[in-house]
Amino acid sequence: MIKVEHIGIAVKDLQTSILCYERLLDTCCYKRETVAGESVETAFFRQGETKIELLVDLKPDGVINRFIERKGEGIHHIAFQTADIRAEMARLTAAGFRVLDPEPRIGADNKWVCFLHPKETGGVLIELCQDRE
Amino acid sequence: MIKVEHIGIAVKDLQTSILCYERLLDTCCYKRETVAGESVETAFFRQGETKIELLVDLKPDGVINRFIERKGEGIHHIAFQTADIRAEMARLTAAGFRVLDPEPRIGADNKWVCFLHPKETGGVLIELCQDRE
Repeated sequence: MIKVEHIGIAVKDLQTSILCYERLLDTCCYKRETVAGESVETAFFRQGETKIELLVDLKPDGVINRFIERKGEGIHHIAFQTADIRAEMARLTAAGFRVLDPEPRIGADNKWVCFLHPKETGGVLIELCQDRE
Repeated sequence: MIKVEHIGIAVKDLQTSILCYERLLDTCCYKRETVAGESVETAFFRQGETKIELLVDLKPDGVINRFIERKGEGIHHIAFQTADIRAEMARLTAAGFRVLDPEPRIGADNKWVCFLHPKETGGVLIELCQDRE
């Protein structure tokens, strides 16, 4: 783990939340991106070496909307940057964590990503990511 | 706002969670601190320029335990470092956010802190902090 790459926040309406976070962070949203494989649209803000990623679901019954139904809008996950995502997946599996993806998959912002099951991480959904070459 | 200073995670048992996060982050907890004013005990881990702060309640009916009752263990707040917390409080109040503390108060890790009401921040509890001189 190198750093907190981003913090993902589940929202209901992307445009409303972008305006809110632009006022809150006093900085502009620098990128919007649809991640087809995840059926989400994302919006990014920079804060030091970390990003804030807003996430809206493109499917009524998708994972973000199901999260919002259970817990309300709010912080959805923490993503840690890794130098070698496969090595981290192996290390964490050996340490007793459950890696939800057998292989890294393509996520937002040109990255390889995978998730850990929150049952072993004290209820926190953790993403690992690595820049794609 | 300068950077994400830390991410606060609400836990039920501090020692169990410290062992879990040491395995997860592959780094040692470098500090435990009781914050008397907040009735919480905290444990810190470094990840790049950001810290992970575990929080356990010292009161059965305290804010962390009430959060866990409502939402389960998990991510409780995001703290942003500011150069001038009072200037940020004034800017955010003028921008329509609700600052929950009329004056900065003493938080963990030798900082001045205040919180914003999550109603105006899309359900996310936001802390502002500034190093105490």
